[in-house]
Amino acid sequence: MHRWALGIEYVGTAYCGWQRQGHCDSVQGQLEKALSTIAQETIDVHCAGRTDAGVHGLGQVVHFDTQSIRPHSAWVQGANTQLPRDIRVTWAHQVDEGFHARFSAQARQYRYVIYNRAQPSALLYGRTYWERHPLDAKAMNIAGQALLGEQDFSSFRAAQCQAQHGQRNIQLLCVSRREDFVHIDIKANAFVHHMVRNIAGTLMQIGRGDKPISWAGELLALKDRTQAYATAPAEGLYFVKAFYPESFSLPQLAVNEVLW
Amino acid sequence: MHRWALGIEYVGTAYCGWQRQGHCDSVQGQLEKALSTIAQETIDVHCAGRTDAGVHGLGQVVHFDTQSIRPHSAWVQGANTQLPRDIRVTWAHQVDEGFHARFSAQARQYRYVIYNRAQPSALLYGRTYWERHPLDAKAMNIAGQALLGEQDFSSFRAAQCQAQHGQRNIQLLCVSRREDFVHIDIKANAFVHHMVRNIAGTLMQIGRGDKPISWAGELLALKDRTQAYATAPAEGLYFVKAFYPESFSLPQLAVNEVLW
Repeated sequence: MHRWALGIEYVGTAYCGWQRQGHCDSVQGQLEKALSTIAQETIDVHCAGRTDAGVHGLGQVVHFDTQSIRPHSAWVQGANTQLPRDIRVTWAHQVDEGFHARFSAQARQYRYVIYNRAQPSALLYGRTYWERHPLDAKAMNIAGQALLGEQDFSSFRAAQCQAQHGQRNIQLLCVSRREDFVHIDIKANAFVHHMVRNIAGTLMQIGRGDKPISWAGELLALKDRTQAYATAPAEGLYFVKAFYPESFSLPQLAVNEVLW
Repeated sequence: MHRWALGIEYVGTAYCGWQRQGHCDSVQGQLEKALSTIAQETIDVHCAGRTDAGVHGLGQVVHFDTQSIRPHSAWVQGANTQLPRDIRVTWAHQVDEGFHARFSAQARQYRYVIYNRAQPSALLYGRTYWERHPLDAKAMNIAGQALLGEQDFSSFRAAQCQAQHGQRNIQLLCVSRREDFVHIDIKANAFVHHMVRNIAGTLMQIGRGDKPISWAGELLALKDRTQAYATAPAEGLYFVKAFYPESFSLPQLAVNEVLW
């Protein structure tokens, strides 16, 4: 049996999310179909972080096991010829059985992208969240620092979240502006359901001046999942990167910073 | 009669080009339909530069005449509620009858965007041209300088071009690299049909090392429209800006440089 890890990039717009489901088109379903064609056997993939409908992936990582012996290029160029143009394999790397895309990942990083201009952009529709009211990115950044570290994120957790508890560790939370774009970068060991979108929605309330800077910390302290009512839309969210121990020697593909 | 000028942004992927045609969906057709709804009368628009199927617009400019009296917001926010999400009005400005979107324009600027990496990008499909072979952007830039100034661009002219002659004046031609992107920026008083795409295709031959740096100037000197066989695909091309005399006081909307 051979285990491969792959880097995956996708536009989530056309899919009902990462996870394979019977009734709709998923990124996982498309990828498994393409890889099964290459392998000439049924392939099941496991990913670093499942994304919701409409959420995009820049540096998603998957692994799968196969009995088929194929060259590296079959899993990259070969798979890409089988995939729709909005899903791409960016790299492939053979790994040992100690590697698991989900359980070996030590941290994940997301970026929420806001296009902050009076008029929406035709070019960025579906790829960013458009906010017409000017956002104070500096205030959002200060507010976000209250969320750093090991904390109970129940207030930023979707009502339907199935995790056993809301305890997570945010290692980085940075809000920055570049021209008309506001970026929210968040790295954590793991995320509860809708956590990034709920944090993004809360920080935008602060950025618009609807809530004080202290609001993010106050909401966190409530530890109440019924409080997370400011869920930012999926279209602005990108799964940017999964972090693994260096011993696995996975390719480090630079994410183009210019990808808004 | 009132004359308005509008700024227009669009993704060309879904359209058969700018120009209204009976048998297919055009950007002009969509825009005229939306504006006619707002005006409650038939609106005909004239643009600064017609674009081909699949070519995108960042700073397209149009004008139209109407007997209807509508506030500024009707032509921007109002029109945007009537338009598909891949076409947007970015500004509106009332102008006098001396203004004509096409004839008043003193120059146009295009950008050709190449994504130059071993693997294609899911996020940029349809929005950039993917070139897997490493391009020498510096060599392309040097080669491009031979095309500056008032010249006969017949060698970079589509066979079906209907212009009376190939004489045009390129005021700026700059090839630059930013991470995995190569940008070709070209400003000229006007362009013959397929001129930017034929120049981009020729410069890519040079960038790949298939042709010497002198090739661009040699091809230009041939003044032969049957020579322009290296037409770069439409998906990488953006109409960036039209330049008008300052006396028209049109809004100068900064184009986000981060829009790849």
